Amino acid sequence: MSDPDTADRTGSAPAHAADTDTADTGAAALLTALRRDLPEDALGTGPEATGPYATDRSGSRPDGIPLAVVHATHTEHVQTALRHAHDLRVPVVPRGAGTGLSGGASAGAGSVVLDLSRMNRVLELSPEEQIAVVEPGVITAELDRAAGEFGLRYAPDPASAAISTIGGNIATNAGGLRCAKYGVTRDALLGLDAVLADGTLVRAGRRTVKGVTGYDLTGLLTGSEGTLGVITSATVRLRPVPEETVTVAAYFATFAEGAEAVSALTAARVEPAMAELLDGPVLGAVDDAQGTALRSRGGALLLLQCDGRGAAAEADAAVRCLRGHATSVEVTGDPAEADRLLAARRLALPSLERLGRVLIEDIAVPRSRLAAAVREIDAAADRHGVRIFTFAHAADGNLHPILVLDPDLPGIPDAAWQAAGDIFSAALRLGGTLTGEHGVGTLKRRWLADELGPDQHRLQRRVKAAFDPHGILNPGKAL
Amino acid sequence: MSDPDTADRTGSAPAHAADTDTADTGAAALLTALRRDLPEDALGTGPEATGPYATDRSGSRPDGIPLAVVHATHTEHVQTALRHAHDLRVPVVPRGAGTGLSGGASAGAGSVVLDLSRMNRVLELSPEEQIAVVEPGVITAELDRAAGEFGLRYAPDPASAAISTIGGNIATNAGGLRCAKYGVTRDALLGLDAVLADGTLVRAGRRTVKGVTGYDLTGLLTGSEGTLGVITSATVRLRPVPEETVTVAAYFATFAEGAEAVSALTAARVEPAMAELLDGPVLGAVDDAQGTALRSRGGALLLLQCDGRGAAAEADAAVRCLRGHATSVEVTGDPAEADRLLAARRLALPSLERLGRVLIEDIAVPRSRLAAAVREIDAAADRHGVRIFTFAHAADGNLHPILVLDPDLPGIPDAAWQAAGDIFSAALRLGGTLTGEHGVGTLKRRWLADELGPDQHRLQRRVKAAFDPHGILNPGKAL
Repeated sequence: MSDPDTADRTGSAPAHAADTDTADTGAAALLTALRRDLPEDALGTGPEATGPYATDRSGSRPDGIPLAVVHATHTEHVQTALRHAHDLRVPVVPRGAGTGLSGGASAGAGSVVLDLSRMNRVLELSPEEQIAVVEPGVITAELDRAAGEFGLRYAPDPASAAISTIGGNIATNAGGLRCAKYGVTRDALLGLDAVLADGTLVRAGRRTVKGVTGYDLTGLLTGSEGTLGVITSATVRLRPVPEETVTVAAYFATFAEGAEAVSALTAARVEPAMAELLDGPVLGAVDDAQGTALRSRGGALLLLQCDGRGAAAEADAAVRCLRGHATSVEVTGDPAEADRLLAARRLALPSLERLGRVLIEDIAVPRSRLAAAVREIDAAADRHGVRIFTFAHAADGNLHPILVLDPDLPGIPDAAWQAAGDIFSAALRLGGTLTGEHGVGTLKRRWLADELGPDQHRLQRRVKAAFDPHGILNPGKAL
Repeated sequence: MSDPDTADRTGSAPAHAADTDTADTGAAALLTALRRDLPEDALGTGPEATGPYATDRSGSRPDGIPLAVVHATHTEHVQTALRHAHDLRVPVVPRGAGTGLSGGASAGAGSVVLDLSRMNRVLELSPEEQIAVVEPGVITAELDRAAGEFGLRYAPDPASAAISTIGGNIATNAGGLRCAKYGVTRDALLGLDAVLADGTLVRAGRRTVKGVTGYDLTGLLTGSEGTLGVITSATVRLRPVPEETVTVAAYFATFAEGAEAVSALTAARVEPAMAELLDGPVLGAVDDAQGTALRSRGGALLLLQCDGRGAAAEADAAVRCLRGHATSVEVTGDPAEADRLLAARRLALPSLERLGRVLIEDIAVPRSRLAAAVREIDAAADRHGVRIFTFAHAADGNLHPILVLDPDLPGIPDAAWQAAGDIFSAALRLGGTLTGEHGVGTLKRRWLADELGPDQHRLQRRVKAAFDPHGILNPGKAL
């Protein structure tokens, strides 16, 4: 492993499906077969072509660089690559835009990267059915834009929507800001085409809103991080663009008071479309970077959006409830004014990135434990001398503690891993999860068994084997 | 098989996991083990005790009656029963209230019924988290009522809610009327405890709204009709009771015009919580049974509900849209008046049951194909000389063609199976599914492969084997 810290954190995840000698023979035979059976421009080999595919946005980097990159433009290319890789037992790493934050698309020596970013056509967009059929490489925001031409939208909106692909979103079951009301990627999926490890194309799910024939393989593939199959097409549900959207911004003395206000909103049966809670250090970082004065207004900022034909009434109910908790509350139905209020959230990560190298964590806890989670995060920061800034998709109990590290250090210091480990343990102790929406990838595998328990873990491995008996699909990831 | 028609329809589904001799030895050994390891009142044997468990509300009846019934009151009873059945290769049929319409809980000779109806405690109901943790035998309407004490509700509302159990709802991924807006059972589930075929207890999912650690086994178990595991606890999401509900009733000259109006609502980006469409023959049957005069008002009736803080605005938009299509439109925010309007839907099935033996089908098609589906249903009725009445969860494209048969006939006539077969084929041809919300059970297995295709079917069988290698869990059902 080139990065000892990563190596330490990822544990002993095998980068190879077979031992080295067999792998070398297999690799040579695979390259021959791929050269024979794929169009010339669909295959990249050599360090210049494959080097950029060794890592993803997580920065996690396994040993070496991949053997080859297949740039698929048709499902048949995916089938060809997998059929040969399966026969020759060569590991395959499916990849969309490489924007994942958990190392799910990092690819080491001896592996073949299956790049799906060129399969990027919207195959169908039916305003009548409110569905779209898309290839996996479609950029998420592009689909949303295409739907917008018909007054519709693709509801899931991961923060990476402008750069991530639908296929990658499906692989991690990506969430986002609007999922407080509209749910995660899974909730927008009706069906998937996926190529199994042996090259077999399977069409799971359907075009109808409801349907219960057979097991829900669409749901099973969603969030499986490329370890069960390679998605080559998705049938997604679109929703009407809301008639109205009202934005509320409320400041609180402390994060705990903000979290308490979110619980109060739940108790008042308010259902926002978005509820983002930023802690004081994040506000301070935005101020430093942008010249604003948010931190002087409070120790936490809650940004709500209510939408639909009841947006104004919903926002009214929210404001009535928040007045008892907040130091100030602003509300607007004006889009430009809303943009101004939301700037703090939009600029949070860019502002933190100016302070150092960021490591974005992603725990979720039961909604009433938000304040407890932030206390644990702050304690972990103090204990290990690490700077941590937190914002949360508060209505979902999904927190992103951002560790900001010295960019001059060669790797990630032990203290940061220890703080992260403490945060994961705390999330589980609070009845939560290691990862709300980013996936396990390589970076969280060490803690996986703590969450699943041995019996479920064994069962999950049997499910994996039912799809991929030789373990060639994204080995060392997710499970 | 005691009913040749059923036998014909169910095909060669094996009622046993092993051959007869082995089964007899296994049966005797199992009874001995269960008598030893279970409380006396948890075990029923002999025809009087087991006879009632041979069939469910579908009326489908395999050969013979079950060997024994285990009335579980604790998870340990489920584990004990399964562990022994697994060791001795005896088939086990999990059962809630037996209200399924596809034969999923019918149990033949040599099988053990695992009755979960006595595991009926609400273990936790947290208004703070808006979740409940329930045992599988809780009656669905009971959970909804318990949530109601806190201003919350359990959103999925299958028509059987007053008599069916949460466990059964999960096993079939039950839908209902409100799923136009709130989704199906799966959408309300956060986590499940399930006992695997070998007696291992697995805790899938979590208490948080979001979470992507490991494969989504909660979703996989949902809708698996008792073939992958036996659910012993479910963590479900509750939602606020809407602040306001507005009901709209619109009559149309024909079903096709009603279906067109539903498409127009979609195009107008109206999002109702419920959209039920009844055809003219159903209205006539209600009139005959109840002395009403609905049929004189039109050839189809659409019943909509809009709810939440935007209910009135949503209903306004609906009414504006419907006026161009309907012969009459009524709208009310008054609950008593709403009840009067909804009576036609509520009384539809009881009214049809007065006309003969009913066989309730359950296809779903893409939403824009509703009218085409009803044309196909009517053609199948004419072709085979069978009386078919249809109502639909129109916003989901989910149709219930009700075949009304001569109650004096001993079995179900061939013509009825042929008509049903034609309807299923039509559903698939229209891009739809065999079953929107009732499950495959035994009754639709003959058509299953047509929908799944051979490659997906094989994969589904491998998934089944990963959970239940000896095939003891509900053999001959679902897959």
